[in-house]
Amino acid sequence: MKVSIIGVGLIGGSFALAIKESFPESSIFGIDKSEVHVKEALEIGFIDVAGTMEDLADSDVAIVAVPVDISIKVLKEALDHAGDNTLIIDAGSTKFKLCEAVKDHPKRRNYLSAHPIAGTEFSGPSAAIKDLYKEKTNIVCEVEKTAFKLQERGMEIFRKIGMRIRYMDPESHDRHIAYVSHLSHISSFMLGKTVLEKEKNERDIFDLAGSGFASTVRLAKSSPAMWSPIFQQNKENVLETLNEYIQNLSSFRDLIANDEFGEVYNEMERTNHIKSILNGIS
Amino acid sequence: MKVSIIGVGLIGGSFALAIKESFPESSIFGIDKSEVHVKEALEIGFIDVAGTMEDLADSDVAIVAVPVDISIKVLKEALDHAGDNTLIIDAGSTKFKLCEAVKDHPKRRNYLSAHPIAGTEFSGPSAAIKDLYKEKTNIVCEVEKTAFKLQERGMEIFRKIGMRIRYMDPESHDRHIAYVSHLSHISSFMLGKTVLEKEKNERDIFDLAGSGFASTVRLAKSSPAMWSPIFQQNKENVLETLNEYIQNLSSFRDLIANDEFGEVYNEMERTNHIKSILNGIS
Repeated sequence: MKVSIIGVGLIGGSFALAIKESFPESSIFGIDKSEVHVKEALEIGFIDVAGTMEDLADSDVAIVAVPVDISIKVLKEALDHAGDNTLIIDAGSTKFKLCEAVKDHPKRRNYLSAHPIAGTEFSGPSAAIKDLYKEKTNIVCEVEKTAFKLQERGMEIFRKIGMRIRYMDPESHDRHIAYVSHLSHISSFMLGKTVLEKEKNERDIFDLAGSGFASTVRLAKSSPAMWSPIFQQNKENVLETLNEYIQNLSSFRDLIANDEFGEVYNEMERTNHIKSILNGIS
Repeated sequence: MKVSIIGVGLIGGSFALAIKESFPESSIFGIDKSEVHVKEALEIGFIDVAGTMEDLADSDVAIVAVPVDISIKVLKEALDHAGDNTLIIDAGSTKFKLCEAVKDHPKRRNYLSAHPIAGTEFSGPSAAIKDLYKEKTNIVCEVEKTAFKLQERGMEIFRKIGMRIRYMDPESHDRHIAYVSHLSHISSFMLGKTVLEKEKNERDIFDLAGSGFASTVRLAKSSPAMWSPIFQQNKENVLETLNEYIQNLSSFRDLIANDEFGEVYNEMERTNHIKSILNGIS
């Protein structure tokens, strides 16, 4: 199997590592505008060859794993280069604008729109992890628009690297993912900002921070180059979630200000049942 | 060494387990208004005997580990019962009101005011963990007000169970801890609320949530009985942090609404250096 990875960072590199393990006979071609990243990926060894877009013509599968502002352009270009038998998968965190952008492309049936719900707060080739996708969810959008035999090939790859599949239309994907992913990142970044601003002259104060603080601000380490375009592409949904979040925080603040601690207690207790929902997410 | 644990939940129980390991000859007396919890603690085995406040007269050390609204009353009562040679330590998350409340107590010198920065989102005797305090920070307030030989005993215990000590006055403690702990809990509870409200009819949407979401809402599993009194006792500081957080979220929302994605990027990049600060917090 000839595999092309377009974007050899955390997401693409982790696909390369997982595919190498599940399909040991495959040759992996790495394509990236950054020569430094291609060199690093070759050194780490998760790609076998530095490739170009020309390699897509006879690739069995190509995975587009670049920031979502670039992916519209890159996906179109990848489809332009795809052979009849090439499956192009993208792994971006927003789906609606991308699906719209290629809906009339003559090779639309070579494309499978996916969003693997997996990642870490790190980025670049050295962040790639072999088991990143194991037991994780992969959201597949508009599966019916992909050629049947290419769907099958994609699903076999996802199954072998250990992912479970959920099907969804792109609009629903973008709306739901704003709540369960995009909002968490903003909440974390702004929490980090608030504390850094306050404590900027007293860095040793962070000595006082425990695992709870570390957990809530972990996502503030994420890559701005990845996240800024995501917020842009999913602007309307992100604004809706953010307005609701600010509203809830303001109401909670008012309860504290007005000494309504019985209701403060109730608010927290009503949210406590998130325990049962979070079981199984690691 | 005779040790009394007042409140045999996560915090008190973890002290009991750690002390039992570091001081194998000690006898541990468990005191709790909940008979069910005392029975559970005896069954788990981290206390040896069900005790009463009378046991404080000849205890070498007593640890008060109850919610902060109850701790003012319980700490006074514990000091009333303390023998001349009894060290009373409390482990509450707010320090100013407690130190104020006992400042004129005739046995003030028997009291060491502490805040171990350690915990989990779980509570009750079954949540106790032997290594909870290992390599964690313990903030000690007004150490000069504790009798010298009792300070020494407290420090020996903390050192043996693996804690590092930071000294601070109660007002500074409450102000800083609002930023690095209390705000994180509110941020997490309200994030949980926002998502639960939106997705209440679609529980399987949480299937789409990844580890980032789980990390940011983890603290929303915390005990309202513990946290509501903390917000009450540290009201002014908590309101200040919450207002700044809401302000930062609102500004970020406005940047997105006005399509200022260059500045969205910059905001995130400026916060990214939290990476270096978080190193070492697990």
